[in-house]
Amino acid sequence: MTSVIEEFWRNAEARDWAAFAALLAEDVVYELPQTGERITGRQAYLKFNVEYPGDWHVEVQRVHADATGGASWIGATVAGEHQHALTFFRFDAAGLISEVIDFWPEPYERPTGREHLVDVERSDH
Amino acid sequence: MTSVIEEFWRNAEARDWAAFAALLAEDVVYELPQTGERITGRQAYLKFNVEYPGDWHVEVQRVHADATGGASWIGATVAGEHQHALTFFRFDAAGLISEVIDFWPEPYERPTGREHLVDVERSDH
Repeated sequence: MTSVIEEFWRNAEARDWAAFAALLAEDVVYELPQTGERITGRQAYLKFNVEYPGDWHVEVQRVHADATGGASWIGATVAGEHQHALTFFRFDAAGLISEVIDFWPEPYERPTGREHLVDVERSDH
Repeated sequence: MTSVIEEFWRNAEARDWAAFAALLAEDVVYELPQTGERITGRQAYLKFNVEYPGDWHVEVQRVHADATGGASWIGATVAGEHQHALTFFRFDAAGLISEVIDFWPEPYERPTGREHLVDVERSDH
């Protein structure tokens, strides 16, 4: 079912909303646990994506899935700013996406006191 | 391979470090993209976990995996504070964990201007 998630992001990037909607269950639920926002239903979720402001782009980094659901890690660029997004999906019995849960982590300062445990520091974050 | 990830978290929660280490490839790489930290090798990664301060606990919310890797969403409680953690895993040819990438998203304010698109607000975040 990895392909469903890859297709989801390909359709989003292409703004092919008909193909995007065709992957969604009628009663799909979208959740953003960091803000507590929730959207219920294909039409409402489609509207949320179609109306999302800015010239955003997505690039898939990693997708893993089994028969019941999966997860993706994408790089999203919104107005020139790069961000990671982690998304968990559930599929219904027909193979349609019935749940989408997004997380948008921000960079943070390295905690002090664990420098001796970290053997390489990256500069690409 | 979902079971490897479930076992990974079960061993971490149980502080069963021998069992935890047995799931890891010798050259496992651990990365925290939000801070740019990286740890290379089973011994160093084990030490990072063993020495991690505080009375932390993990509860698995979701795991999905295929033959090459997978992802988990856990709830972590550190010193009474609850946080989401999203982790992406890669498996090597022997089925051992060769890569662990953690993300720790924080709550953030709901952006204004999309209230009309969000049909239910949750209070459990």
